[in-house]
Amino acid sequence: MNTPSTPTDRSAYALGLTCLCHIEATRSPSLIDALADVSPDLGRLAIRFVYGEIYQRPHLSYHDRQLATVAVLAVLGNARPQLKFHIAAALNVGCSAAKIVELMTHLLVYAGFPTALNGVFAAKEVFDERQLHFTPTTTPSCPGDARYQAGMDALSRIDGHAGEAVMASLKGIAPDLGRFIVEFGFGEIYTRPVLELLERELITVAALAALGTATPQLRVHIHGLLNVGGTREQMLELAIHVAAYAGFPAAINATLAAREVFSERDAGGGDGDPSAPSG
Amino acid sequence: MNTPSTPTDRSAYALGLTCLCHIEATRSPSLIDALADVSPDLGRLAIRFVYGEIYQRPHLSYHDRQLATVAVLAVLGNARPQLKFHIAAALNVGCSAAKIVELMTHLLVYAGFPTALNGVFAAKEVFDERQLHFTPTTTPSCPGDARYQAGMDALSRIDGHAGEAVMASLKGIAPDLGRFIVEFGFGEIYTRPVLELLERELITVAALAALGTATPQLRVHIHGLLNVGGTREQMLELAIHVAAYAGFPAAINATLAAREVFSERDAGGGDGDPSAPSG
Amino acid sequence: MNTPSTPTDRSAYALGLTCLCHIEATRSPSLIDALADVSPDLGRLAIRFVYGEIYQRPHLSYHDRQLATVAVLAVLGNARPQLKFHIAAALNVGCSAAKIVELMTHLLVYAGFPTALNGVFAAKEVFDERQLHFTPTTTPSCPGDARYQAGMDALSRIDGHAGEAVMASLKGIAPDLGRFIVEFGFGEIYTRPVLELLERELITVAALAALGTATPQLRVHIHGLLNVGGTREQMLELAIHVAAYAGFPAAINATLAAREVFSERDAGGGDGDPSAPSG
Repeated sequence: MNTPSTPTDRSAYALGLTCLCHIEATRSPSLIDALADVSPDLGRLAIRFVYGEIYQRPHLSYHDRQLATVAVLAVLGNARPQLKFHIAAALNVGCSAAKIVELMTHLLVYAGFPTALNGVFAAKEVFDERQLHFTPTTTPSCPGDARYQAGMDALSRIDGHAGEAVMASLKGIAPDLGRFIVEFGFGEIYTRPVLELLERELITVAALAALGTATPQLRVHIHGLLNVGGTREQMLELAIHVAAYAGFPAAINATLAAREVFSERDAGGGDGDPSAPSG
Repeated sequence: MNTPSTPTDRSAYALGLTCLCHIEATRSPSLIDALADVSPDLGRLAIRFVYGEIYQRPHLSYHDRQLATVAVLAVLGNARPQLKFHIAAALNVGCSAAKIVELMTHLLVYAGFPTALNGVFAAKEVFDERQLHFTPTTTPSCPGDARYQAGMDALSRIDGHAGEAVMASLKGIAPDLGRFIVEFGFGEIYTRPVLELLERELITVAALAALGTATPQLRVHIHGLLNVGGTREQMLELAIHVAAYAGFPAAINATLAAREVFSERDAGGGDGDPSAPSG
Repeated sequence: MNTPSTPTDRSAYALGLTCLCHIEATRSPSLIDALADVSPDLGRLAIRFVYGEIYQRPHLSYHDRQLATVAVLAVLGNARPQLKFHIAAALNVGCSAAKIVELMTHLLVYAGFPTALNGVFAAKEVFDERQLHFTPTTTPSCPGDARYQAGMDALSRIDGHAGEAVMASLKGIAPDLGRFIVEFGFGEIYTRPVLELLERELITVAALAALGTATPQLRVHIHGLLNVGGTREQMLELAIHVAAYAGFPAAINATLAAREVFSERDAGGGDGDPSAPSG
């Protein structure tokens, strides 16, 4: 078996250090200091592997990687210091404050209001610490009577037949839940500005891959990512990225879900592709 | 598909605001202030959707909704401020302090001791902040030699054949684990006072739906909820309620599990219904 | 900054491949095949980093690493294929079937019954696939009236003052919960055979580090690990190990918790060391 030529460990560490300095906007990464007197090996491994290797890979920009990282840490909810670190890093690589707040708002669909709230409060702490004066704008809701149709339009565009199949399966059992998904999830949230549809799907896929508890929805949104302009390479890279923040099993399972989705699309079936014939 | 007529957004927001003021026992919800300068839209969406729409729905009282919310936030363990907020709200809608402490004790069966401990300590902070002088009572354990039988009686009553099938399947691999479930889970915990059996099953179903990692047990306890007097409408409403605190994927997956359980019961098979003929 | 000399990537990959073949007991790791046509890079990264680097480090044997990995995957509950893979790998490196079943039983204290049940059923599937005829033995419970004292003895031995402080803090709010922890958690579970105390603490620390939602308990059990003979080096290595299965943030936070515990012990204060003067 060939192992592709990769940077040597020494250069991977150097690349990682440069990357970490860049995203933290510092000359002396806080991670090194924090671990120096207790576990320098862990710091070295993180720098070499996460920043020297994963972050150096193609198909996802630092900007997109930070969106994914922030989404993963927000939904896992178990590592607040790192969530704040990566919100700051997202700002450092060019994400606007508005985009980070919108990302948290987006997550309420997939992880509920407490996750969204805690994410917003973590962001606010970061903004305050940087004396970043953020003035939120508000987006009026789509009017109530037009919201269902706007939601169905968004659902069809994003999830295609995969989303419609979920709606159909809910009809016989919980039609109101289906209506909330359409009106609220798609009609309200997906139609909001600030995040592009492709960014919303990157965030959704990263979050569901990290949670690992919603595989059917992960598959629907892998279709969604591809339907709104994402590539298969981006999808697979996203899975690798998730390994750093949610572990390898999450990465492997997301990759295997992606393989199934790719096969469905190659078979041309009534999968998630809105241009495919109805199944 | 017809979308049922829904309140206009303005009136849904107004209803939500009234509801939130009621459960927080305030004239000025803290959520609005906390989000005003960072994401007023998130506050508006939460008030309109969670409190103006979900909380207004039938089949679950505010009291039961607060039990479910506290259970979800306790087992997810990732949103301590909201956990404290909803413990206080539970008190405000008429849950006793004893019931909240008992809820946390109940959760140790489904989420382990750390979850129960952290839940109890959060409750204690809320009680102390309100200067609520809570005097715990203790319940003597069922005597050791009677506990297995008491547990089997409770197990049969609650989970019916679904629970008995779990016990049988453990015999060949981990009989002591099966014994602990019967003696400790059912003999000790389910036989305790303060929470009704129906409340215990509402809590259990909400917690397992939010976790998303224990689908077989979720199905057993959907049977359990129906066996101790819960209705299918309550079950489906509980799934919708969970969407607010653990996201839509958790709600969808719980709803689809409920559909399977309902089908099993309609087929009259050896399902979880203790009045059904043995499978 | 010096980067310690590390194996080159090529040799790390070769070491990782040898390691993975060993723990999977195969000449052709399934991971490579599974990912070959979808994301060979992910397979290569996992082999080089997890098996070529982390598994090659000192202070934890393959046996102990497999116990930790199985504990992490069981409590996260979101990666069943990997859980089965690592149960099989644990058998391959010399863990007995009885030890794996006992590990799952132990986890009910920290993650609840569904986790323990699902872990046991995954183990049973692995045993059946290998035609490993496992005959469980049962351990009689400590008699009911002696259980509290046995539990307090175990608690003092393992958690020291840290555990006693938890019990004291429960007295005013949930004394029955405190009693359950003593009687059931310590009196029943920790006194069972098959797993050594040190193994129980390795499992506990790995599980709590992965969950990331029970920091107070993680700190108590870092004390516990050291109190029953574990070393600081093992603790720090365990944190690094967790990075592979639960991500770097979990590893970093566990390491920082360890640093605090080490400082407490060095200060000789009323920490978790049973031989230290009471605080």
